Amino acid sequence: MSLVQELKPGRLYLFSLDHDSEIVASITNLAESLRVEAGVVSGIGALQKAEIGYYDQKTHEYRTIEIDRPMEISSLIGNVSIRDGKPFLHAHVTLADSEGNVKGGHLSRGTVFAAEIYLRELIGRPLERCHDPTTDLFLWSETR
Amino acid sequence: MSLVQELKPGRLYLFSLDHDSEIVASITNLAESLRVEAGVVSGIGALQKAEIGYYDQKTHEYRTIEIDRPMEISSLIGNVSIRDGKPFLHAHVTLADSEGNVKGGHLSRGTVFAAEIYLRELIGRPLERCHDPTTDLFLWSETR
Amino acid sequence: MSLVQELKPGRLYLFSLDHDSEIVASITNLAESLRVEAGVVSGIGALQKAEIGYYDQKTHEYRTIEIDRPMEISSLIGNVSIRDGKPFLHAHVTLADSEGNVKGGHLSRGTVFAAEIYLRELIGRPLERCHDPTTDLFLWSETR
Repeated sequence: MSLVQELKPGRLYLFSLDHDSEIVASITNLAESLRVEAGVVSGIGALQKAEIGYYDQKTHEYRTIEIDRPMEISSLIGNVSIRDGKPFLHAHVTLADSEGNVKGGHLSRGTVFAAEIYLRELIGRPLERCHDPTTDLFLWSETR
Repeated sequence: MSLVQELKPGRLYLFSLDHDSEIVASITNLAESLRVEAGVVSGIGALQKAEIGYYDQKTHEYRTIEIDRPMEISSLIGNVSIRDGKPFLHAHVTLADSEGNVKGGHLSRGTVFAAEIYLRELIGRPLERCHDPTTDLFLWSETR
Repeated sequence: MSLVQELKPGRLYLFSLDHDSEIVASITNLAESLRVEAGVVSGIGALQKAEIGYYDQKTHEYRTIEIDRPMEISSLIGNVSIRDGKPFLHAHVTLADSEGNVKGGHLSRGTVFAAEIYLRELIGRPLERCHDPTTDLFLWSETR
């Protein structure tokens, strides 16, 4: 179920996200309004609170980790592709607390304190997420 | 106070930083000498010691976390924009110790053991950092 | 032993790596088969198990940290350059467990559960890794 896809350079953006906005929705909405169908994302900032996920490789269920305190976004790395016909953000983060201690995982949700995000659009045959029977995740696959 | 700015592709650099140099000053000096006014930065390497920061979202003060031992740079993500008329690096890191345990936050200072840094220049209307009354941080904002 | 090298934009790829493949070999093999001699890499995903490294700055030896449980790849950042005449991946990771707790360091080995990798080729004078007497690492240096 692997894929190697060459894409062409598209538009380049720097975003500063709204204070109090929800980070996943904000980035997704920007991708959607700009009609970005594929791209890569990276960024830093701080969240007021967050929800991150860990995918259990045995049970194939996401476990939710609630973080109910302010955290620095020490890293955010992700990509945009198509799921269910719409731009979909898949991002992972590491978050650091007041002692510098770090939690990480799949970014499910987060309330922005401040965030600086880089989005690089990639142009080409759309990368579509389809159900992968091995992992039960929605992964990219060769579409033919 | 949000911003969405499209930029054009600029120059691309790989840097290997000097052993014993201070990492924030080294990257800032390179950006300045190359006249890079906007860009994104990522990298890996190792530091001999470091100082990272956590911004207290209530008191609006930075808390300093001193790390007085050698650490791998497990991630460095950041950007270059303009503050006080000069190129300014804003970077966050995660740092890993000899057991793989990680500290993260705002990169204030670090002594390079070895570092490999990617800098992508972005060209367009300069992104300037201005005081943001909500967070007391110097953030990008629409300049009109 | 520092280096500042400007490179030109090359090809852009998104990869989805094979389930059960070894991540370092997979990315290296892709770079080799695509004849990518220099580039930067970033990505996210999950590993079934991993081996990460910490370079002891005093003894100049790698210490190995075995992680024998499934982990999210909360960040992967790296680069491709030339070592011993062939494309060589140097990547660092942070990995997060079911509680969100994070381990980080040099990525030595990992068994892919799922991984989404971005590779940006950079074109120019090849960056070659040579022994650096100060650190005993194989670093880029000015070749003349």
